[in-house]
Amino acid sequence: MTHQTETPLFREKWIDYIYGLQAQICAALEATDGKARFETEEWERAGGSGGGGRTRVMQNGGVFEKGGVNTSVVHGRVTEGMNRELRIEGAKWFACGLSLVLHPYNPFVPTVHANWRYFELYDEDDRVSDRWFGGGTDLTPYYLFPEDAAHFHGTLKNAIEPFGDELYPRFKKWCDEYFNNAHRGTETRGIGGVFYDHLRETENLDIEKLYRFQQANGDCFLEAYLPIVAQRKDLSFTAENKYWQEIRRGRYAEFNLIHDRGTLFGLKTGGRTESILMSLPPTVRFVYHDEPAEGTPERTLLDVCRHPRRWA
Amino acid sequence: MTHQTETPLFREKWIDYIYGLQAQICAALEATDGKARFETEEWERAGGSGGGGRTRVMQNGGVFEKGGVNTSVVHGRVTEGMNRELRIEGAKWFACGLSLVLHPYNPFVPTVHANWRYFELYDEDDRVSDRWFGGGTDLTPYYLFPEDAAHFHGTLKNAIEPFGDELYPRFKKWCDEYFNNAHRGTETRGIGGVFYDHLRETENLDIEKLYRFQQANGDCFLEAYLPIVAQRKDLSFTAENKYWQEIRRGRYAEFNLIHDRGTLFGLKTGGRTESILMSLPPTVRFVYHDEPAEGTPERTLLDVCRHPRRWA
Repeated sequence: MTHQTETPLFREKWIDYIYGLQAQICAALEATDGKARFETEEWERAGGSGGGGRTRVMQNGGVFEKGGVNTSVVHGRVTEGMNRELRIEGAKWFACGLSLVLHPYNPFVPTVHANWRYFELYDEDDRVSDRWFGGGTDLTPYYLFPEDAAHFHGTLKNAIEPFGDELYPRFKKWCDEYFNNAHRGTETRGIGGVFYDHLRETENLDIEKLYRFQQANGDCFLEAYLPIVAQRKDLSFTAENKYWQEIRRGRYAEFNLIHDRGTLFGLKTGGRTESILMSLPPTVRFVYHDEPAEGTPERTLLDVCRHPRRWA
Repeated sequence: MTHQTETPLFREKWIDYIYGLQAQICAALEATDGKARFETEEWERAGGSGGGGRTRVMQNGGVFEKGGVNTSVVHGRVTEGMNRELRIEGAKWFACGLSLVLHPYNPFVPTVHANWRYFELYDEDDRVSDRWFGGGTDLTPYYLFPEDAAHFHGTLKNAIEPFGDELYPRFKKWCDEYFNNAHRGTETRGIGGVFYDHLRETENLDIEKLYRFQQANGDCFLEAYLPIVAQRKDLSFTAENKYWQEIRRGRYAEFNLIHDRGTLFGLKTGGRTESILMSLPPTVRFVYHDEPAEGTPERTLLDVCRHPRRWA
């Protein structure tokens, strides 16, 4: 199946959406933060391939200790490495997406991550031979507020449900499985959300519907996250709370550097290192054999990472 | 070539050496630290394979913020994964080694890492079909004292030289190439030392000589490192010095989690996670686009990581 006529327009529409969403999300986050502004760097891809992106990073804010909301629009020829490691078959490729990670200072405000991307493959005559969406949104609290988890998951579920009842449960499960620090048995990075990849056109979901599905995910992000920030950002906390946040941030770093396919693929194929690693938490602790005592709030959080729950 | 008669004895001799070296190094480090003691955990390998180890970890000492001196003596059947990912061909394997990492609190005292290991492969009839040594010692300073780098490299060079003039330069280069954060271009983890792997018997170096070579490396460790600790541990430092140490520790964590073959192989094949990750620094910072200004001591350190020098 080829789509040589409609696709350039479709691709452009997605690029416009992504840049618009980046501007909207950054403006809302700056308003919430009240102190720091996002710095913007436009970059171009070096080497034989083309494209670039807009990296927007905030550090040492009133609410966000470190955060990035990055877009990239990149394309190139399919290399042997992509073929072997990603099983990508085609002559040329195009990818455009937005990635964000926010690390708040207050340990009662959860870290959040989201990514929405669109991928196209072409044959030698620039005809589209394959195309798909991927992405998701997930929450990493340091202390569990069940009502926050329910709000977050509920918002995602409501946004996705119009496209099929089976989608939220499937993508929720996929998220729990993906964001797992497998070298620690079952221990998820946080309380999850949704994750999906290689979403291709089907009889029920044509490319336009997939586009609207992806947009629904992007559009509900602020609604899913900001009310939680507003609720928790002024809670007072102790040095012990901060210590525990930094331990859990260590697990976040472990996941991103050991397991996350996007991070590793980017680093090993000449992506922009600083933009990719903006996802790492600002301060981290790695403590030998830390295990919170039974009955503590720290243990409660760890328990839901070890035994993922249904939240919506 | 098979060595069915001599080898069990040879293997036992190496195991005895490793346990003795662990005891010696830990005692000397406790004496240097003056405050904390190593806690010891004996562990056994779960699952179908056998063996175990002795993990000795120190935290929040007078000199060492976190350190581990671990031994393991493990064996099993060669799995399909080992065959595919490590190109190990044989029916059964045995490995015994010591791994140590020390993270001092004072940013003027360098972090050090060493590992000495011995590996055997067997056919179905338990006859040795291959065997080799691997390991090395490398230094990660946060500020450059050229005389410390010269002492460290000089000690290693002197210990190795009796076994062949070509060995130190070859293993020094191998070390610079191995401990490189390739996702940052050329940026080594520290100022190196020596690194080597798959050292098999040759006409010039039979297995007994290799054993003495490996012993020479292990035996010179305290002499290579402790005088540097003594020289720098009482220097006063600022919050800025500590900040820079934590930035560089971030690069240490990046290397270990993204590139280090030993770490990744251990984590992905069911090694003891806490023992493997004791190598991670106690506190770490990941800052977007940190680049020290020209002419600062921080920049001097970064320059020698970007352009490895000859020290001995």
